[in-house]
Amino acid sequence: MTDRPTAGVLGTGIMGAAMARNLLRAGLAVRVWNRTRAKAEPLAADGAYVADTPEEAVRGADVVLTVLHDGPAVLRTMRQAAPGLRRGAAWVQSTTSGIEEVGEQARLAREHGLVFFDAPVLGTRAPAEAGQLVVLAAGPGEDRRAVEPVLQAVGSRTVWTGEDGADAAATRLKLVANSWVLAATQATGEVLALSQALGVDPQSFFDVIAGGPLDMGYLHAKAALVLEDRLSPASFAVDTALKDARLIVDAGRRHGVRLDVAAAGAERLARASAQGHGEEDMAAAYFASFDEEGNVEQEGKEEREG
Amino acid sequence: MTDRPTAGVLGTGIMGAAMARNLLRAGLAVRVWNRTRAKAEPLAADGAYVADTPEEAVRGADVVLTVLHDGPAVLRTMRQAAPGLRRGAAWVQSTTSGIEEVGEQARLAREHGLVFFDAPVLGTRAPAEAGQLVVLAAGPGEDRRAVEPVLQAVGSRTVWTGEDGADAAATRLKLVANSWVLAATQATGEVLALSQALGVDPQSFFDVIAGGPLDMGYLHAKAALVLEDRLSPASFAVDTALKDARLIVDAGRRHGVRLDVAAAGAERLARASAQGHGEEDMAAAYFASFDEEGNVEQEGKEEREG
Repeated sequence: MTDRPTAGVLGTGIMGAAMARNLLRAGLAVRVWNRTRAKAEPLAADGAYVADTPEEAVRGADVVLTVLHDGPAVLRTMRQAAPGLRRGAAWVQSTTSGIEEVGEQARLAREHGLVFFDAPVLGTRAPAEAGQLVVLAAGPGEDRRAVEPVLQAVGSRTVWTGEDGADAAATRLKLVANSWVLAATQATGEVLALSQALGVDPQSFFDVIAGGPLDMGYLHAKAALVLEDRLSPASFAVDTALKDARLIVDAGRRHGVRLDVAAAGAERLARASAQGHGEEDMAAAYFASFDEEGNVEQEGKEEREG
Repeated sequence: MTDRPTAGVLGTGIMGAAMARNLLRAGLAVRVWNRTRAKAEPLAADGAYVADTPEEAVRGADVVLTVLHDGPAVLRTMRQAAPGLRRGAAWVQSTTSGIEEVGEQARLAREHGLVFFDAPVLGTRAPAEAGQLVVLAAGPGEDRRAVEPVLQAVGSRTVWTGEDGADAAATRLKLVANSWVLAATQATGEVLALSQALGVDPQSFFDVIAGGPLDMGYLHAKAALVLEDRLSPASFAVDTALKDARLIVDAGRRHGVRLDVAAAGAERLARASAQGHGEEDMAAAYFASFDEEGNVEQEGKEEREG
């Protein structure tokens, strides 16, 4: 580790691009790669080296940061990066993965002599851009100093959950937290859809719960995206949320609990995606209440018109 | 209306008993009836007259307050009360009903010359006992003074939503608000169940979201009931919540919107009720994640043990 550590960032979507920019601001040398190179290119203006391949992006990196779509993409990309990896480098894995997938990542890290950190982040576009993510992390205490420049640049705080990334303690906490995030988003969408159907001004609902135990900042934030038609660019896209929702339901099932509401939420996200909202903010799950944008279902229409 | 108005309270469950007690504290003469008379009798010590029939409870009442299980119980009970009703009396209908049911209530009120107020309340046991409910109300402005002593005694504020109770504007707002209440309760239960399944300390989840936009007083209140095994006595019973959940899903369907998450929540409440938790607090929907109390489902068990 030099005074100016080098970070190789694999994945420059909503989160990865914002995180890479904060690494640059913090004075790290940053090499980035993205499957669609055009999404990585704007980072060149911030001082990043834009690589053509994962292998090129991780060459010489002290810390490799993965911020990809899902667990399979992480394994695929890291296998491509393998020839460029330096033994002893740290791998900060921030993609939200399934629990079993984290075990596979840790095995891959061992094969290549990397120090593995299971390090998903909590937060969406705005906190990522502000370097205010909450990093949930697990990894060996003696190696944490090496990744501190990265964790401090992207997050406002790091919550350490364990010494061995392979245990997926950070990912388990992340799935629990995301189950709440997704449930709040779905509840917001259904409240808005029901308000619309029943002719209730959403503001009168907000007024009724204002300042009490039922109030929640997230409700207002996500409702505003729908009510003010600000679903693009996404803070957290429908398709990413759908992936997370399925990870959560699956984690519950594998560990013996039924999560009916989370499963229904996943269905809503899938429906919203099929309606063409996949790249919009996950608040667009609201549209899953309707047969198509803005139109209520036929049965209801007939009842109201009849 | 005399200086000491008389209220006839039909239904003395969790909410009705607390509301009747606050009417007595406010100096009203209170006559109460409950289908199971034993649940009404403790109110005698507070000064209530405990009636044997709905008819007897409403005799001489300036204001009739209904706080029953559901819409059908309201119609049935008011038909029984009919011979005792005084033309010109006010009817404050606080049971959460379906929208169409409110229309039937208003028709019944007209038949008997009552001034109808659609007046569901927001809040559970503790605010009801403290006279701190939020009353959502619709009814004619010129007759509101007559019901003020009742509304002020049971609530901290009244949100007026319209001039004609028959429009069910208050009930529509109540269903919207309850969709949020129930969603928050279900999300709390699933977060706790997933935490348990994945071996995550719920406190670490609370810590991660503390003070941010994802935090919510209601989460902590409902989680504490589960974690501290304080599900009885209920603040809001599973069976009542199930009734409300079905009203919400049905209202959505009739008005053309799909509420998948609310429907999944209703299934969880039905399952928790079938498991024997019907009279416990609705936070007991948590148990719907498990095949029986405390035990994870077989599939998960085998995976973990195998």
